[in-house]
Amino acid sequence: MAPVRNGRVLFGEYPTGYPEPGKTTIYDDSETIDVDTVPLNGGFILKTLVLSIDPYMRNLMQPGGGYGTGYVPGKPIFTPGIGLVVRSESKEVKAGDHVCGHLVAEEFSIKPSLGGLTIIDNKHNIPWSTFVGVAGMPGQTAYVGWKEFSNWKQGDVVFVTTGAGPVGSFVIQLAKADGLKVIASAGSDEKVAFMKEIGADVAFNYKTTDTREVLSKEGPIDIFWDHVGGDILDAALDAANIGARFIECGMISGYNTGGAPVKNLMQVITKDITLRGFVFARSMPKYLEEFYATVPEKIAKGELKYTEDVSYGLDKVGDVILAVQKGTNKAKAIIHVADG
Amino acid sequence: MAPVRNGRVLFGEYPTGYPEPGKTTIYDDSETIDVDTVPLNGGFILKTLVLSIDPYMRNLMQPGGGYGTGYVPGKPIFTPGIGLVVRSESKEVKAGDHVCGHLVAEEFSIKPSLGGLTIIDNKHNIPWSTFVGVAGMPGQTAYVGWKEFSNWKQGDVVFVTTGAGPVGSFVIQLAKADGLKVIASAGSDEKVAFMKEIGADVAFNYKTTDTREVLSKEGPIDIFWDHVGGDILDAALDAANIGARFIECGMISGYNTGGAPVKNLMQVITKDITLRGFVFARSMPKYLEEFYATVPEKIAKGELKYTEDVSYGLDKVGDVILAVQKGTNKAKAIIHVADG
Repeated sequence: MAPVRNGRVLFGEYPTGYPEPGKTTIYDDSETIDVDTVPLNGGFILKTLVLSIDPYMRNLMQPGGGYGTGYVPGKPIFTPGIGLVVRSESKEVKAGDHVCGHLVAEEFSIKPSLGGLTIIDNKHNIPWSTFVGVAGMPGQTAYVGWKEFSNWKQGDVVFVTTGAGPVGSFVIQLAKADGLKVIASAGSDEKVAFMKEIGADVAFNYKTTDTREVLSKEGPIDIFWDHVGGDILDAALDAANIGARFIECGMISGYNTGGAPVKNLMQVITKDITLRGFVFARSMPKYLEEFYATVPEKIAKGELKYTEDVSYGLDKVGDVILAVQKGTNKAKAIIHVADG
Repeated sequence: MAPVRNGRVLFGEYPTGYPEPGKTTIYDDSETIDVDTVPLNGGFILKTLVLSIDPYMRNLMQPGGGYGTGYVPGKPIFTPGIGLVVRSESKEVKAGDHVCGHLVAEEFSIKPSLGGLTIIDNKHNIPWSTFVGVAGMPGQTAYVGWKEFSNWKQGDVVFVTTGAGPVGSFVIQLAKADGLKVIASAGSDEKVAFMKEIGADVAFNYKTTDTREVLSKEGPIDIFWDHVGGDILDAALDAANIGARFIECGMISGYNTGGAPVKNLMQVITKDITLRGFVFARSMPKYLEEFYATVPEKIAKGELKYTEDVSYGLDKVGDVILAVQKGTNKAKAIIHVADG
């Protein structure tokens, strides 16, 4: 086979505000690859099928990276994705295997070994894209955060922000399965409709309805699932019950604005609040078996609902990254790179 | 006996910044009482011996009060204290009993019943004042906060603010007894000397030494005991280790300035930090027996060290309240009202 394009997404420069497509990230189609003949040196070659675009990526766009490993100017970005093994000289994988994990944002990758990737055993035949969504990192974030840090008890009132996203919508369904009252917010009426469909007792569009008013009427809240930080975290502190648990999963209100100061933190003292931040990977190992034993089947049966907002082609990555930061994406943002 | 003065401290008006002696609180000596003949109606009369002046009192000086029950303009303030029963018609107490608990800031109080007060069984003959300090609310705050929320493990590095105060100095001694490295800060060289005396590995004057520099050299920190909030909490977040525990006991940097915004809270996520605020009374019951079985004996034997800054007379209350807010007091602030 002749060489084919190997498009990729490079990290351009550190943004100061919102990431700018073409500047913060640059789509580059100058490279080619001959999939059949490129030397593998005992490794394998992967065709990228799906990439995930997530809010926390903004934290990787700073020197060092908010999570320890950031993007490097001039180098391709990376993000959770699904790849198809096209050819392999490794004993670890064979052609036809699907793998998931952090992938380089390029059409074809040569890997010396599996490294942090895992082979997907898709026994319930769920869509590959779900392995970067509800069955992947975001789903696991919701699962482990809820199981490990909610300490829910009967009668608790839960407030979930970004409730139509892949984490928030899973949290809503976990909280409802546990029989709790759920208040959920998101930034469009379409998202509000989805949150109602998956069981939220109170769902509202925070752009047209005041969060404080809703919480004052429907609270006090016992569990807060935070993706926003800043003012919304302050509102949740004001509306918190004694002994409330705040699960800090993201603080997007500060990602593109140099931070979002929190003014009401004194209330963690007067109200005996536990505020727990977490990165899913550190807590997930003990839940991983349980997660894969239950979640994919629920997805296959339609018992666990999710939505996706799919864009096609690596050249869309920059736009989708920006949309996710601005919240103008309609649901879990997915880049479909290739069929497979 | 003829009527005697019954001096008292009234709450004047809500302060906007620092409390002002004579305005925020007013010493009033216009009332008299005849201790021998005043009708008790089945209750008892208490002579106030000692009152405690503490940082959190600033939170009671706002409408509603930060802890639920605030001071009321025109009414006397209240604070933990020690009283001596002078005369009693109640079966609960007899003349000569010493009681502790929240007392009205007045020389003599008539009580219908014990209410929230407890009779002190001072079997180790420790000074009465310690029952509002190291053996009282501040000591219990240190004890329960450390036992319940530190989750300490060998090798942890602990940073304690206000380390010469009655809570901080107890926390330092608890952490050292558990074999941990302790970094401690306070606002005078005299306080630094005391922190070193009680075992702090690193003790510094935050007014002359930069907290960030110390933490950067001596950290990262695994446990942060916070009395300050604001910038110092931000510095501790910057210096925190993965999985750190932040015990939020006070945030005095914001009490007189309309709050102290926190800018670095995103790090609770990237570092898997648990930030736990608490009011000692909610967690103390399960530790109370253990506390009284061990702490007074240690005080009597000199194994648990403490310092006091004693002022004499209720007319000093306003000045001492201000000194505690400004940190110009030398140690645990005590008002000696009467011998007994």
